[in-house]
Amino acid sequence: MNSSMIRIVLGNVLKIEGILMLIPIIVALIYGENTIYAFLITAGLAIIIGQLMVIKKPKDTIFYLKEGCISTALSWILLSIFGALPFTITGEIPSYVDALFETISGFTTTGASILPEVESLSKSILFWRSFTHWIGGMGVLVFLLAILPMTGGSNINLMKAESPGPQVGKLVPKVGKTARILYGIYIGLTVMQIVCLLIAGMSFFDSVCTSLGTAGTGGFGIKNSSIGGYSPAIQWIVTIFMIAFGVNFNAYYYIIFKKFKQAFNVEEVKVYLGIIIASTAAIAINIASMFNTVEEAIRASGFAVATVITTTGFSTVDFDTWPVFSKLILVLLMFVGACAGSTGGGIKVSRFIIAFKTIIKEFHSYIHPKSVKAIRIEGKTVEHETLRSVNVYFVTFAAVFTISLLIVSLENRDLVTSFTSVAATINNIGPGLAGVGPTCNFSSFSVLSKFVFMFDMLAGRLELFPMLILFHPAIWKSFFTSRIKPRKNKWEDLSR
Amino acid sequence: MNSSMIRIVLGNVLKIEGILMLIPIIVALIYGENTIYAFLITAGLAIIIGQLMVIKKPKDTIFYLKEGCISTALSWILLSIFGALPFTITGEIPSYVDALFETISGFTTTGASILPEVESLSKSILFWRSFTHWIGGMGVLVFLLAILPMTGGSNINLMKAESPGPQVGKLVPKVGKTARILYGIYIGLTVMQIVCLLIAGMSFFDSVCTSLGTAGTGGFGIKNSSIGGYSPAIQWIVTIFMIAFGVNFNAYYYIIFKKFKQAFNVEEVKVYLGIIIASTAAIAINIASMFNTVEEAIRASGFAVATVITTTGFSTVDFDTWPVFSKLILVLLMFVGACAGSTGGGIKVSRFIIAFKTIIKEFHSYIHPKSVKAIRIEGKTVEHETLRSVNVYFVTFAAVFTISLLIVSLENRDLVTSFTSVAATINNIGPGLAGVGPTCNFSSFSVLSKFVFMFDMLAGRLELFPMLILFHPAIWKSFFTSRIKPRKNKWEDLSR
Repeated sequence: MNSSMIRIVLGNVLKIEGILMLIPIIVALIYGENTIYAFLITAGLAIIIGQLMVIKKPKDTIFYLKEGCISTALSWILLSIFGALPFTITGEIPSYVDALFETISGFTTTGASILPEVESLSKSILFWRSFTHWIGGMGVLVFLLAILPMTGGSNINLMKAESPGPQVGKLVPKVGKTARILYGIYIGLTVMQIVCLLIAGMSFFDSVCTSLGTAGTGGFGIKNSSIGGYSPAIQWIVTIFMIAFGVNFNAYYYIIFKKFKQAFNVEEVKVYLGIIIASTAAIAINIASMFNTVEEAIRASGFAVATVITTTGFSTVDFDTWPVFSKLILVLLMFVGACAGSTGGGIKVSRFIIAFKTIIKEFHSYIHPKSVKAIRIEGKTVEHETLRSVNVYFVTFAAVFTISLLIVSLENRDLVTSFTSVAATINNIGPGLAGVGPTCNFSSFSVLSKFVFMFDMLAGRLELFPMLILFHPAIWKSFFTSRIKPRKNKWEDLSR
Repeated sequence: MNSSMIRIVLGNVLKIEGILMLIPIIVALIYGENTIYAFLITAGLAIIIGQLMVIKKPKDTIFYLKEGCISTALSWILLSIFGALPFTITGEIPSYVDALFETISGFTTTGASILPEVESLSKSILFWRSFTHWIGGMGVLVFLLAILPMTGGSNINLMKAESPGPQVGKLVPKVGKTARILYGIYIGLTVMQIVCLLIAGMSFFDSVCTSLGTAGTGGFGIKNSSIGGYSPAIQWIVTIFMIAFGVNFNAYYYIIFKKFKQAFNVEEVKVYLGIIIASTAAIAINIASMFNTVEEAIRASGFAVATVITTTGFSTVDFDTWPVFSKLILVLLMFVGACAGSTGGGIKVSRFIIAFKTIIKEFHSYIHPKSVKAIRIEGKTVEHETLRSVNVYFVTFAAVFTISLLIVSLENRDLVTSFTSVAATINNIGPGLAGVGPTCNFSSFSVLSKFVFMFDMLAGRLELFPMLILFHPAIWKSFFTSRIKPRKNKWEDLSR
């Protein structure tokens, strides 16, 4: 294993985090908050340690999928360990375990909080909390790829490990350029949302923080009532932008480059929007009697559907009080998640499309045993390798979910709380139902359960394997034997 | 489609049901019950209609997988429609929908009941109720194959459609002989259990009914307290026989033919017993404080694990009062189910073994990208086709489960009741948790939900596709165009 290259990646990630911390430092300056020292100390530490890690150049810059996975997992862990420091140094989250939970929840864009109330936090800490969503949304390694020139084809393995979805397509042949285009779209949409919110009458600070949380599909609110206290117009804007950030970014790429036909032909996006419309309608009918006007019911339903399917986690009303049918739809949407190639979490719409098409194909084979029918998406045959990886993903997801649930159930909370707390963390949503409903938080769980949730949040965000592979004994063995065997064709592995 | 052959199968199934009803008629005679007329009328109807259906000989006896699936699904529906008649004619279950629910629950070996209490039922009706479990356990079409000589290789398609598990292996080259061996083992084990229960002091009637319910892994009790009122010795005997009927019958075949090495090397059986031991231990520790002695805790835990994993559904204590960790293990075991090729339901241990091995293989491919590792069971490579069908099974199962859950949730019962009522019916278990826990029953559900449960019980027992395929428009179209196109190689399809 090429552990020198992993060290280089980690060092760079730390340096970036240190530099990004300059923004909350500016916020602290503007509001004259003494939290500035906490950010200065953390940023300084991150930059110095990061710099020390990158001094020694690696002998070999080859980078396989294995190294991609491991550096991604370790980067996210390291990011969180440092990112949690300001919370504890300022004393705003005294327990470091809680601060770590909050930070991982931030970077993974989960939005599950251990804070019973947030309005007493300082502005700079509130900003940092929302900013972690934004950093984690598109991914810090994608950012790294966007700004650092890296060697050859190796870097696609970093992107593969961090980007969500069954297929990672490069928009353009160069990984670095793809990463820059993605960040460009991301920044553009975020700015658009800030402007819309300002027009709707939200304050500048609230607009920025809310937009950062929406863009990353994170969900940390800056008010105790999340988005519930804002005007209907603001609630609609947030709903629309949550949905927008759950769209496969390929569609935006097509729009930017004026390939409108392709943009409106992305099958995943069509299904995703279809699910949103159908679920919103079903829930709105089911809850209509609880509201005064039809608009209110649709707004509440649409917001809840958008916040859950995009795995954001903001809330306007307490959907835990809704009828079981509505709650069940929301629980199902938790698992569906947003589109691949978006900032949203969950299992992803495209995986469900593929799963659904395999059922159809099976029926076809019963009725016409002689014909062979390939599974197609947007007219293109889905490769066997993709089908296989989708199936393995479902199975592995179920396994991680089950083991997490068993550990958390040792606390002897009710089944709905146990089930939805794991569902809300592994799918990077935030709130669940019952004991972790929109009006509750995760603070009362044991340290053991909190670590399970932290693992699940990271595993969910990084799509399981990068985190799980850390537990494989062969990885640790090879870490200490970093010699790379010469290979005849070093690009062969990259094609995986 | 060869609808004449389907008609022949259905006619024969009806005749067999009529003949099997002679046994409850004898029971009614012994106990001098006036229920005898209900059974006589039903048996007469079944035999006459059955005979009328088989009079006209089919032109062509070729039978493809499609026909196998459809005749299986329709056979089970027809069996249930007639089997429900005695309940309603006697007035012991006045509502025909409820009687149909009870009968489907019987034949599919689910054991979910709409009866609030059973001790007021007549002996012959109680016997018929338990006997439906026994008939459904091994399968009525397997019985048909055991007694009727059928044409060539076609009949494997009937067996495939009715027998549980991802791979249907014939024990011996001839399907008819395989079916006779299976029924031989089944009858032998049932008699063994009756003898054991008699020795332990149970009455003859109770021993027979309890054994019929155990053998089919059904679970209808003949006492209101199910098995809870019997002695510890009887509870242990039932536990052991429940586990025994959940074992892959291949293992018994090997034992009978003295292939002991192979018998103790059936991987599925080893994993199945391992899961039982581990779950029993975990639950016993978790619930220990609720019992006076260690034996009591182990007995309660072992019984609950056996009744759930084998999908029988008898009960001794109300496990709904247990801690969440224990309840969760039981819910998970509901889905695991028993071994393929046993009388138990659920998803089957072998499918989970294959799923688990695909995860291991995936890890392997991350770490050693160049090596190709096949999935093996008992040293033999699992064919790609089997892997694919296992994956499709999981996905289809999840889809049927989700749709059922959504419909049932319209009743606005709590999530645990809704979830476990579907889980308990689709996995053919019987009791669930909360509103459908061991002390409750299914009588209060709406007719719509009851039909969903009936469908799920049948879909679960027949492993989804035979039931689902009935909804495919192409099937109905081809029903009315029964002409068979000549095929060059008529055996080709059978190899599927």
